[in-house]
Amino acid sequence: MLGATDGRTREKAGAGMADQHDDEVLERDEDERDAYALDESLRGRLKALVAAGDVDGIDALMEPLHPADIADLLEQVSDGERESWLALWSRGIDGEVLSELDWGLREEVIALLPGDVLADAVRELDSDDVVDLVEDLEDDQIEAILEVLEPADRVAVEQALAYPEETAGRLMQREVVHAPEHWTVGEMIDYLRAHAGQLPEQFYHVILTDPRMKPTGYVTLGRLLSSARQTPLQDIVEDSFRVIPATQHEDDVAYAFNQYHLISAPVVDEDGRLVGVITIDDAMIVLDEGAEEEILKLAGVGEESSLSDRVLETTKQRFPWLFVNLITAILASLVIAQFEDAIAQIVALAVLMPIVASMGGNAGTQSLTVAVRALATRDLTSSNLMRVVLREGVVGLINGAAFALVMGIVGLVWFGSPALGGVIAAAMVINLFVAGLAGILIPVVLDRLNIDPALASGAFVTTVTDVVGFFAFLGLAVVFLL
Amino acid sequence: MLGATDGRTREKAGAGMADQHDDEVLERDEDERDAYALDESLRGRLKALVAAGDVDGIDALMEPLHPADIADLLEQVSDGERESWLALWSRGIDGEVLSELDWGLREEVIALLPGDVLADAVRELDSDDVVDLVEDLEDDQIEAILEVLEPADRVAVEQALAYPEETAGRLMQREVVHAPEHWTVGEMIDYLRAHAGQLPEQFYHVILTDPRMKPTGYVTLGRLLSSARQTPLQDIVEDSFRVIPATQHEDDVAYAFNQYHLISAPVVDEDGRLVGVITIDDAMIVLDEGAEEEILKLAGVGEESSLSDRVLETTKQRFPWLFVNLITAILASLVIAQFEDAIAQIVALAVLMPIVASMGGNAGTQSLTVAVRALATRDLTSSNLMRVVLREGVVGLINGAAFALVMGIVGLVWFGSPALGGVIAAAMVINLFVAGLAGILIPVVLDRLNIDPALASGAFVTTVTDVVGFFAFLGLAVVFLL
Repeated sequence: MLGATDGRTREKAGAGMADQHDDEVLERDEDERDAYALDESLRGRLKALVAAGDVDGIDALMEPLHPADIADLLEQVSDGERESWLALWSRGIDGEVLSELDWGLREEVIALLPGDVLADAVRELDSDDVVDLVEDLEDDQIEAILEVLEPADRVAVEQALAYPEETAGRLMQREVVHAPEHWTVGEMIDYLRAHAGQLPEQFYHVILTDPRMKPTGYVTLGRLLSSARQTPLQDIVEDSFRVIPATQHEDDVAYAFNQYHLISAPVVDEDGRLVGVITIDDAMIVLDEGAEEEILKLAGVGEESSLSDRVLETTKQRFPWLFVNLITAILASLVIAQFEDAIAQIVALAVLMPIVASMGGNAGTQSLTVAVRALATRDLTSSNLMRVVLREGVVGLINGAAFALVMGIVGLVWFGSPALGGVIAAAMVINLFVAGLAGILIPVVLDRLNIDPALASGAFVTTVTDVVGFFAFLGLAVVFLL
Repeated sequence: MLGATDGRTREKAGAGMADQHDDEVLERDEDERDAYALDESLRGRLKALVAAGDVDGIDALMEPLHPADIADLLEQVSDGERESWLALWSRGIDGEVLSELDWGLREEVIALLPGDVLADAVRELDSDDVVDLVEDLEDDQIEAILEVLEPADRVAVEQALAYPEETAGRLMQREVVHAPEHWTVGEMIDYLRAHAGQLPEQFYHVILTDPRMKPTGYVTLGRLLSSARQTPLQDIVEDSFRVIPATQHEDDVAYAFNQYHLISAPVVDEDGRLVGVITIDDAMIVLDEGAEEEILKLAGVGEESSLSDRVLETTKQRFPWLFVNLITAILASLVIAQFEDAIAQIVALAVLMPIVASMGGNAGTQSLTVAVRALATRDLTSSNLMRVVLREGVVGLINGAAFALVMGIVGLVWFGSPALGGVIAAAMVINLFVAGLAGILIPVVLDRLNIDPALASGAFVTTVTDVVGFFAFLGLAVVFLL
């Protein structure tokens, strides 16, 4: 904990532990929820300015906004508003705004921009941002953008695009600050000062390389700044050092950053030579998108869906999962159809049977969500699989028993039949037990078969719980009630 | 893009664009999925060493592992194995391993550690890590840990704990590198060299402060390293600069880091004075936990649930949601019970009715997941609400019409009744339309009422789609079929 924190005393001030704050426990201000929400009046004012054709007014309105906020606004306005706005103010759309736009809208906005505006926008971006910008576009749009780049940048982008999608090679920036292992702090600082204009915008480490360009360690900028000029870089390298193969999947890269708290990591080709660097902000985006995709896939929504999608796109994204669910539901109905006679005799069965199926479906969803999450975070391994399966089975039995008791009483009170109460209670225990096991085993098996468990588990688990739920309840009813 | 990348030529090498890689498009290696998976044999070898009481062997086995990996292993072994392991090797558990442990297990492991081991483990941590370690523990465990700290560290931890939970004040590290605004690069470097031993382990910016300790801007370490000694810090400050109030909620902090690509940001008290700094790795953890919680809440699983939870804990976490679902299911059954006569006359109604309800439930889940996600990412605002509601309604109608056609045909072919086909078709359109609207409106209303939409939307939406589904189908059947 360093010196004084009084900035007026030049000699003492500087780094320090700032420790003054009010000890009161403050309640969270409800309004703070919207700490970073866009001003609600913004859209209205923008609309008025666009209608009036007031370009200077739009400039003034947009000036304080971060490119990410301008992109959000572009996503939130209606199609018509967006077109009129861009017709007036296309010059305001720079590379950063394009980078921040939703994938679906990007294509559209790029198509609306005049060629010279697009060229300026793209030229100002680093090569990895251009890669990110173009990789999901149509081929002719990619070609149009690559054409406006300087030859060297174009080559860099094309080389990055040669790596498979969703790999470290696509994610990395190719501008790397590296140094021979034998340099000193002083040599490094002199080098950086001499090349100030050409350094990447953000870098957090200097990577040391051997004569064959293989990375051998790295030095944080903090250590570099706080060490004497004559210190060899070798003496201040970090203990832990991880390199990332260029062909590694971006999910693995994000996992490594999250698990090992990396800030940046060198990327190497198959010969172990340095080809780029990945920084934590790129990893954070991958991690964020991964969680988003998982949530959407679990709900049977296309993983790329977004609020700015059109009706037709949205309909198409939702249809397949609903169709799978229809098959599942029809399978369940076929089970029910086997018991038509029983239902005709005791209509109460029709009233109660959805309860058993629904409870099983929910218990199964609970288990499968925990399993899918644990697979995604790599917490579920062969080491603990048996223990978790056992746990899910036992939890299913206990909750099954608890709800069996409740439903037994409901069945008895509502329909005055102890036998009916017993049947629904037994079916509940069976279905919640099966739901617990299916919820864990189905995702694990799908994962082993290299089928995405987030996407496919739901349909299988629901089928199991519906079929077992109806079959157990109606089957037991036939045996004990007729 | 800088000079040559040949490390052998001292004068030319250094920073550079590394651009050699193979142009071949490589297929993703299936095995790479487990790039960072723990060696499966590790647990077996550990078990053997623990059984043999071979402490040196355990040391050797653990030596190459990152603390995060050791923590994962502690989570994956059985309770008995963990106890025997810790009894032999408690000295191997340092502060970092404790920090990486799952919340549920942390309490247990801390209770198993001898006092001196715990003291050493805690003393080596930065104050913000101690805060993170203790904040969820029982009061007596917190007291035991605070007691072993140096008085100054203890005060720092207690001051942080005085901030409300889940605020920037809890998240920030109190060790901040800052400097008076009038300093030059040279003065700053001299200061850092003089205080090398006391600097925070990781820092990415120097924060400039005015004489009242208010932050006025910041300089990246990269700019500092590449600027001449006589350069005033003022001349190389970053354009964009955001400060975070100490009482801001951590979700807002994470949003700001993600939205504005921040690497670190100064935290200020209510008078605007610098009290700490938050770095991107802290924000990444909050973002990651937020997504995890959202997934678990959407599935009705306790937001703090983890694979290492015991049976009883897990049962208790799952029970409330299942209970809510039971109420929902009973409500739906009450609707069915109104139509017992109709079902007794046409048993086919009992066979087909779950299909309508199930399709509605799934369509509703799709809409609500998109809505909950959009609320969490602040993409759904009053600016675009009407457009999204309209879209969800129209999507529901279109998908409803498509599945109405399918089900109409199924009803006709299966039961030979055009009227029955028509009834199920009409019920399908109604329920999918209602599902779309309920899926978007219920989360938005809950959010306005400050009720967590991820947690509560599912129950309400399912109730709506079940009730509407059964009522529409059976009601139409009564009108048109009897």
